[in-house]
Amino acid sequence: MKALVFDGKKINLKSNIRKPEIHAGEALVKVLMAGICNTDIEITKGYMNFKGIPGHEFVGVVEEINDKDQTLLGQRVVGDINCACGEPSCEYCRVGMGRHCPKRTTLGIAKRDGAFAEYLTLPVENLLLVPENVSNEMATLCEPLAAGFEILEQVDFSANDKVLIVGDGKLGLLINHAVSTTAAKITHVGKHPNKLELAKANGSQIVLLDQMPQKQYDIVIEATGSANGFNFSLSHTKPRGVLVLKSTIASSQNIDMTSVVVNEITIVGSRCGLFQPAINYLATGVDLSSLINRIFPFDNALEAFEAAKTKGAMKVMLCF
Amino acid sequence: MKALVFDGKKINLKSNIRKPEIHAGEALVKVLMAGICNTDIEITKGYMNFKGIPGHEFVGVVEEINDKDQTLLGQRVVGDINCACGEPSCEYCRVGMGRHCPKRTTLGIAKRDGAFAEYLTLPVENLLLVPENVSNEMATLCEPLAAGFEILEQVDFSANDKVLIVGDGKLGLLINHAVSTTAAKITHVGKHPNKLELAKANGSQIVLLDQMPQKQYDIVIEATGSANGFNFSLSHTKPRGVLVLKSTIASSQNIDMTSVVVNEITIVGSRCGLFQPAINYLATGVDLSSLINRIFPFDNALEAFEAAKTKGAMKVMLCF
Repeated sequence: MKALVFDGKKINLKSNIRKPEIHAGEALVKVLMAGICNTDIEITKGYMNFKGIPGHEFVGVVEEINDKDQTLLGQRVVGDINCACGEPSCEYCRVGMGRHCPKRTTLGIAKRDGAFAEYLTLPVENLLLVPENVSNEMATLCEPLAAGFEILEQVDFSANDKVLIVGDGKLGLLINHAVSTTAAKITHVGKHPNKLELAKANGSQIVLLDQMPQKQYDIVIEATGSANGFNFSLSHTKPRGVLVLKSTIASSQNIDMTSVVVNEITIVGSRCGLFQPAINYLATGVDLSSLINRIFPFDNALEAFEAAKTKGAMKVMLCF
Repeated sequence: MKALVFDGKKINLKSNIRKPEIHAGEALVKVLMAGICNTDIEITKGYMNFKGIPGHEFVGVVEEINDKDQTLLGQRVVGDINCACGEPSCEYCRVGMGRHCPKRTTLGIAKRDGAFAEYLTLPVENLLLVPENVSNEMATLCEPLAAGFEILEQVDFSANDKVLIVGDGKLGLLINHAVSTTAAKITHVGKHPNKLELAKANGSQIVLLDQMPQKQYDIVIEATGSANGFNFSLSHTKPRGVLVLKSTIASSQNIDMTSVVVNEITIVGSRCGLFQPAINYLATGVDLSSLINRIFPFDNALEAFEAAKTKGAMKVMLCF
């Protein structure tokens, strides 16, 4: 089969890759469409020391199931990317927290080949049926949208809460969609008037970074992935407020935690989410196509990667 | 009156300081005993740009009240150090969060003279009666003990929770006392076998830093005040666990927040606490005198400051 393979140095488009075997409890999924995430670009720079086929945002059709339950055979699916050990002795799997299982593999990110290929495998229990009225493009956005909805699993939003979303990239705008399903009042701050218009269309108040007042918010969501973004977000979080950290790149370097203690701020790290809330939201018929930059045929995958690397690029997808 | 005064450069013992005036709603308190905190030492290095009389841990007797309610006159009291504006228009005061009022003054820390003097003033509403069976020494520990109990206001502890307290200094040991009132299982890690013995006597499992296993805990409380302590604490916090930051000095420099996001850790900044839980705990007759290093007469206050600066010193107090 065709696949994009990262060998530790370079990413190559290959056509002679062996179709993956399906183990007990797994399904073989023919990929219809896949999205390129910043994490994929980080992987090509060495993130996670991953070697193999990257890609974790996808929609596909189940072609084969190595399990008694054949319900999903022939169906269009998306899939949770974390594959837990499932052992009764695992303290995370036992309580439904397989996404934190220390023995987990992660599709296209850790110890498991991913979605930039004609076929992938996942445990049947990871797969979710895509409703008919959800297009392939929208279904491919399910994984990053689920990461947005994860915030709603971790933090309570009330009608009185003033929420600030920092960053108008893909992630920030998907988070905007997730949080807009709550009654909280959203202000969205970013650098790009054209992107902020998408947040405005979604009912948010918008403000350009250089026009941001020195106001503080009950809940601030950091989605820029930069250390500056972290410090900006912290300075706009109210005493006893909540700062949600949504991007792994907001790491390292000169973070001043004094105000976290003095103002008793709660910082909530937030990663992948459950898919069902995202599917339910997409099934309402919401159109997120303005978040998609361009869809490339898989044969132009390397060109697509370059397009995805462009500063400020919206979502780039591959189709088969 | 006699007072310790920090002029921005140096701390001096003076005897000709004017007794403070009491404004409407305030009480004049004759200080009986005061404790030296690390914050006081930081103040003499420029922290908070404070000038004036430092000191915020005290017990005293109410000598005069500028208010209709004279209930506390002649009584032994401790006092909440944060003096809020109390305006109905203040969004913090309105909801009982005066400790975060942006217009607040703080005894001996910000815009208000403190307890290293024969007399101090505080709003009557800040004062709490000290039960007869609580000694002056124990009452003076009320403020830092309240900071320990603050964690119980912010984080839920259950019998299944495995808690790690990092740091065996005064603050860590007072936190141990506060958390030991819950059903959680406590492990206390530090560098000093003699100090850890105090945690052991309080029912905790103890472990020396260099013998710490690579185990992770549901709730980790950072009480070392160092960047190393922060990273150590983070690496011992379970996925989806809680890391409580208790010391302001755990600031700055190369903090890697990636694992906060990947492991979806919640960081809770924690500062001052309500005094009542601390008084209630002291009223049970608990003896914390092992946490006290030495009590100096006020005339030897400068010597006491030097003693408090000694690496690893326990609580140093001044008495009048």
